[in-house]
Amino acid sequence: MIDLNADLGEGFGRWTLTDDDALLSVVTSANVACGFHAGDPSVMRRVCDLAAERGVRIGAQVSYRDLAGFGRRAMDVPAGELADEVAYQIGALQVFARAAGTDVVYVKPHGALYNRTVRDAEQAHAVVAGVRLAGGTLPVLGLPGSRLLAAAGEAGLTAVPEAFADRAYTPEGTLVPRREPDAVITDEEAVVRRALAFAVDGAVEAVDGGTVAVTARSLCLHGDTPGAARTAVRVRTALEAAGVEIRPFA
Amino acid sequence: MIDLNADLGEGFGRWTLTDDDALLSVVTSANVACGFHAGDPSVMRRVCDLAAERGVRIGAQVSYRDLAGFGRRAMDVPAGELADEVAYQIGALQVFARAAGTDVVYVKPHGALYNRTVRDAEQAHAVVAGVRLAGGTLPVLGLPGSRLLAAAGEAGLTAVPEAFADRAYTPEGTLVPRREPDAVITDEEAVVRRALAFAVDGAVEAVDGGTVAVTARSLCLHGDTPGAARTAVRVRTALEAAGVEIRPFA
Amino acid sequence: MIDLNADLGEGFGRWTLTDDDALLSVVTSANVACGFHAGDPSVMRRVCDLAAERGVRIGAQVSYRDLAGFGRRAMDVPAGELADEVAYQIGALQVFARAAGTDVVYVKPHGALYNRTVRDAEQAHAVVAGVRLAGGTLPVLGLPGSRLLAAAGEAGLTAVPEAFADRAYTPEGTLVPRREPDAVITDEEAVVRRALAFAVDGAVEAVDGGTVAVTARSLCLHGDTPGAARTAVRVRTALEAAGVEIRPFA
Amino acid sequence: MIDLNADLGEGFGRWTLTDDDALLSVVTSANVACGFHAGDPSVMRRVCDLAAERGVRIGAQVSYRDLAGFGRRAMDVPAGELADEVAYQIGALQVFARAAGTDVVYVKPHGALYNRTVRDAEQAHAVVAGVRLAGGTLPVLGLPGSRLLAAAGEAGLTAVPEAFADRAYTPEGTLVPRREPDAVITDEEAVVRRALAFAVDGAVEAVDGGTVAVTARSLCLHGDTPGAARTAVRVRTALEAAGVEIRPFA
Repeated sequence: MIDLNADLGEGFGRWTLTDDDALLSVVTSANVACGFHAGDPSVMRRVCDLAAERGVRIGAQVSYRDLAGFGRRAMDVPAGELADEVAYQIGALQVFARAAGTDVVYVKPHGALYNRTVRDAEQAHAVVAGVRLAGGTLPVLGLPGSRLLAAAGEAGLTAVPEAFADRAYTPEGTLVPRREPDAVITDEEAVVRRALAFAVDGAVEAVDGGTVAVTARSLCLHGDTPGAARTAVRVRTALEAAGVEIRPFA
Repeated sequence: MIDLNADLGEGFGRWTLTDDDALLSVVTSANVACGFHAGDPSVMRRVCDLAAERGVRIGAQVSYRDLAGFGRRAMDVPAGELADEVAYQIGALQVFARAAGTDVVYVKPHGALYNRTVRDAEQAHAVVAGVRLAGGTLPVLGLPGSRLLAAAGEAGLTAVPEAFADRAYTPEGTLVPRREPDAVITDEEAVVRRALAFAVDGAVEAVDGGTVAVTARSLCLHGDTPGAARTAVRVRTALEAAGVEIRPFA
Repeated sequence: MIDLNADLGEGFGRWTLTDDDALLSVVTSANVACGFHAGDPSVMRRVCDLAAERGVRIGAQVSYRDLAGFGRRAMDVPAGELADEVAYQIGALQVFARAAGTDVVYVKPHGALYNRTVRDAEQAHAVVAGVRLAGGTLPVLGLPGSRLLAAAGEAGLTAVPEAFADRAYTPEGTLVPRREPDAVITDEEAVVRRALAFAVDGAVEAVDGGTVAVTARSLCLHGDTPGAARTAVRVRTALEAAGVEIRPFA
Repeated sequence: MIDLNADLGEGFGRWTLTDDDALLSVVTSANVACGFHAGDPSVMRRVCDLAAERGVRIGAQVSYRDLAGFGRRAMDVPAGELADEVAYQIGALQVFARAAGTDVVYVKPHGALYNRTVRDAEQAHAVVAGVRLAGGTLPVLGLPGSRLLAAAGEAGLTAVPEAFADRAYTPEGTLVPRREPDAVITDEEAVVRRALAFAVDGAVEAVDGGTVAVTARSLCLHGDTPGAARTAVRVRTALEAAGVEIRPFA
């Protein structure tokens, strides 16, 4: 049994990026951009409407305020400001989720904020403070072993670990940094095989050829590259064929 | 009996504008900027906290997306987009109002959106659609006779007319446009006298020397000019001395 | 003899829109976005480098400050502010054009600013004031009969009229507004035929079936729709086959 | 002989911050904000006009793209992007400096970018690359011993070291970080005394009570706090009374 999540609604104004319609037929959890790295209000409303219609759960994909950098540039935002920015984004998304007859049911940081809160305890706590400010008890989706999930747990929030079928793992179970060769797995067969490994075995092949245990209650699928939606469909089909139940994490 | 409202939280990042602390001791309704023309998340949180502490009601001061122009430049925003932008702002503010133990209890457009929706029915309806999208039945504060209040009424929302003690009125009861001389009344005595006229007589002296009836359930006080807070205090004191009860409109 | 121009560099950060590489093999004049509706600094540099390499002339595609609306929402920007905003954008682009060994050699307003300055004399003069502020004598590309070209002429700037091969024309030689059916011509054959009509006959078929004279020293090709680049290639090929010389307007 | 510089034009739209008029009567070099942390086009034009009128030299105060954080939040901007952003800002300012009959004659990073490039060689080189992209040989103003000045020197640019009369220094001649107590000197007498020490002795009292040599060709005065302009006037008067010539650094 596993949840499938993807980043959605990452267009802005005239620009589109993710194939929201296709991915919303595959995933069980939609990480919806909230306007700070992508996602204008109309994109947010449309994704929420479609997600609600298809029974896909809505999560707030919160980010640094950085449209020009798509939230991929780490920023030294003071903790108080960061908490407020996170709360602001969640609140804005709640309006559209509720208008669609559902609600925001989890939070996942985007891009550089996701990566920064793996090790930066102050920003990790700030994200959690923002979640609590926004009404309190939403689960937080993140990397197993991250400061973010630790902070969520300490605050009494549900910490949901996720795995990436298209990323290489170190023997310690952490992600190989993107700047290294082979950090991203582009071969579709390999991505499908690894998704199965996470869901069925709770383990995956590390870069040294060994096997590393990775606890994950959700698998993150990507939707911002050509062919991404097709790969996502194949992953889901293969999981179902292997008897894995695709189900929201909560 | 009358309500007193003022625009608050109109700083952004390093910049401040309104004397929020002083005005929150005077008004009964705080129009809080929501980030589109002013008001970063931390300013919003602080104003909501202070307003809640003092029992001042919180309204969403929604605007065109225009930090550089402070929301004072009319924009031809398509109705659907505008409704979504309004809803987004209300949702973001709700988070901070609720975190402070209260809620957003009305909506008032800012600047060019306020002026545009006096006559532009399409944008007036879009603002109302945004209010409804954001959960529905919030009262709308605006100019008597405006398309905005008409649209609010048609949609079943409470339409709250307001008056401006520091603006000149035509014999028809509309505001003299700012570009005309004497549109803004800067003499403090005159402002106080006119506030009393609105609250006690429901009428004010027009530019032609005659008297014009102006129905108002709220008086708008300004907080972004030097001496504004002091004038606001004097208006309130004079109203109370005249036996007018200062009370929220709803 | 005719010039071919297209809007380029209309991505922003993570987002792309126009097929800059393909279009820079077709056009003689590149309208480069300057950061206000699209075009971050790195996109601007890349387009300038490529344009310079291929001998394509660089123009500043100036816009209202409106990333969220892609510059397509008319704004009531006061004349002085608008002139300064136009100058700012030209200056920023000059850096990249000069770094590429060439220069900004004309100016063309984008989207809502283009449309607004067809009839709005104040904003038309403001755009021209911005051009002059930025160093002075750059030609201005626009719609024949527009206030913009009139203002450019009055200021001693070269006014360059352009035509649109994919837009329907009224019998008076103005564009059929986009909101009307058949305003945009999507049939590739028709677009090619109309491009030839402009270049060879100086006239085109109007919506009433009659022929209307349209003076144009440049043809605007679009690059932001699927198939746009292919159509652009076909237009150029057809023009050359008909003996029309494709040459910059100045 | 020493130069006096100050950050100017740090308003944005409706907001003002620095007392530009007063400071332009004191300093010889104006670090003009270029729109990324502050400074809209109209502010930039006004400051350039006034600086030119008073014979004050204009420098580009370049920043991370961060209006909400006033450029005070360090950002991991990739080197190429950062260079392009720096060049963009310089180009935009050049337009207004040239329109005022003068030019941008130096560059100084603002806030977090200033602090980051003290130690971060990659970003320091990126800033210098941006300066070179923008036309090449402008001097760079910065902290003595910083990576920024080293990078400028390596690239053949003039590196201009500056000192801060209102900041505490370590025995090693570096600034005491702002987060430490007593990092900022608020006593006006002390500020004046330290300005004299820099200009006359080339040394200042460090936090341990000893004296540390600080080479500075310019003194940075602050203009964004109450009383700042008055302190700046007193510093200048005291320097002149001590026979120090106040003169631009180049």
